Amino acid sequence: MIDLPLDPSLFEERLRFEGGLRYHDRHPFHERMHEGHLSRRELAIWVENRYYYQTRLPIKDALIVAKSENREFRRAWAERIVEQDGKAHAAADDPEAGGLELWLALAEGVDLDRRRVESFADVLPRVRRACDRYVDFVREATIVEAVASSLTECFAPDLMERRILAWDRHYPWVARRARAYFERRVRRARVDSTHGLELVLKEAVTHQVQELCVDALVLKCEILWEMLDAIDEASATGAAIGRIA
Amino acid sequence: MIDLPLDPSLFEERLRFEGGLRYHDRHPFHERMHEGHLSRRELAIWVENRYYYQTRLPIKDALIVAKSENREFRRAWAERIVEQDGKAHAAADDPEAGGLELWLALAEGVDLDRRRVESFADVLPRVRRACDRYVDFVREATIVEAVASSLTECFAPDLMERRILAWDRHYPWVARRARAYFERRVRRARVDSTHGLELVLKEAVTHQVQELCVDALVLKCEILWEMLDAIDEASATGAAIGRIA
Repeated sequence: MIDLPLDPSLFEERLRFEGGLRYHDRHPFHERMHEGHLSRRELAIWVENRYYYQTRLPIKDALIVAKSENREFRRAWAERIVEQDGKAHAAADDPEAGGLELWLALAEGVDLDRRRVESFADVLPRVRRACDRYVDFVREATIVEAVASSLTECFAPDLMERRILAWDRHYPWVARRARAYFERRVRRARVDSTHGLELVLKEAVTHQVQELCVDALVLKCEILWEMLDAIDEASATGAAIGRIA
Repeated sequence: MIDLPLDPSLFEERLRFEGGLRYHDRHPFHERMHEGHLSRRELAIWVENRYYYQTRLPIKDALIVAKSENREFRRAWAERIVEQDGKAHAAADDPEAGGLELWLALAEGVDLDRRRVESFADVLPRVRRACDRYVDFVREATIVEAVASSLTECFAPDLMERRILAWDRHYPWVARRARAYFERRVRRARVDSTHGLELVLKEAVTHQVQELCVDALVLKCEILWEMLDAIDEASATGAAIGRIA
């Protein structure tokens, strides 16, 4: 009895429950961000370290594309690579600019040096390890687990909407166009998470695979949380600030 | 002295020499194809088995994208995934149709059942093994080796042009629009091989890496050759023809 699979709607509920419980919107660093308590230096540390995470996205998405035998799935998932990498040599305010370009515009908006950010020179070792662990997990996982680990996106639009309001209110010194990434992700994460969830609900039809999917989502939540722990610690102790004015 | 790297132009010459020597345009099966000696059944066996190879392309290309830390490289290489998988739910004669869709149109043009071809049910075990070996190689290889293995594309446009003329002349019963794939590849392979060669010439700057690149290209030639050996044998012995009228 205990090993029966959940039906799709209950399984979705379980994923949303387990993910929602552990999603990093509740992390103290995010809470301080949204309450307007971060200094310029702390915001910059966050932007710079998070850039490393952002650069892992097209890589893990390409790994997911390579796992699929389904042309339509690959076609839809490959859009995520383009979504981050961009379509052409587009400027940051160009609608064709990819997410990575928009994130670099955000970095400049918090007074970071673009080339320094791109070099990863100041990425905290714990952040790098957490992100690499995510890519390694995706590389080795089955497609359904890899996609399940992406389902933190189900919770991203709400977090992003709170972030947009918080930055408008508390960090107006960051130019509005430097924050374009957040606005784009609100829409995009809804589309993407729906597509990911569709595959997971369709493919995870045994108890065992459903549990592996929950584990994958929990792992991903832990990775996001670990990144903020590292950033939080660095901003408290004054590490990793050599180059931020 | 023996371990000095070749300069880029000599290295390119070496790649073209080693690849040209082993490229499958000289395979007896291709020679028979171009001389108009293949039966309908033999053409169909070739088309059906080659489809399995075609379906490996977006997978190996996604693996290559995932190996790159360079956004511009990924952006350009990701186009290959779209090139095969297509952009939307496009019909075969739609310019947005991907290469796989065009290959299925070719399959129908040689009187194969589309669904049967898509199922891989009649793919020869040796063909499957050869193609899987290619994907496994790319999965484990460094990016420069993986890209080097794709450089058989340098020789593809010439082969494709001969094929177009030969099919026009010898197999006119295959509808012209069913052969659209070949025409598209002439243009596309030129663009793609230039881009691949550029990376290999830029990155392979030690003797050791240059040799690994040559090995990768030779391996790929062997894989393409092995596929035709298997197809040739099957068409001679009458294996794998259960479902072809």
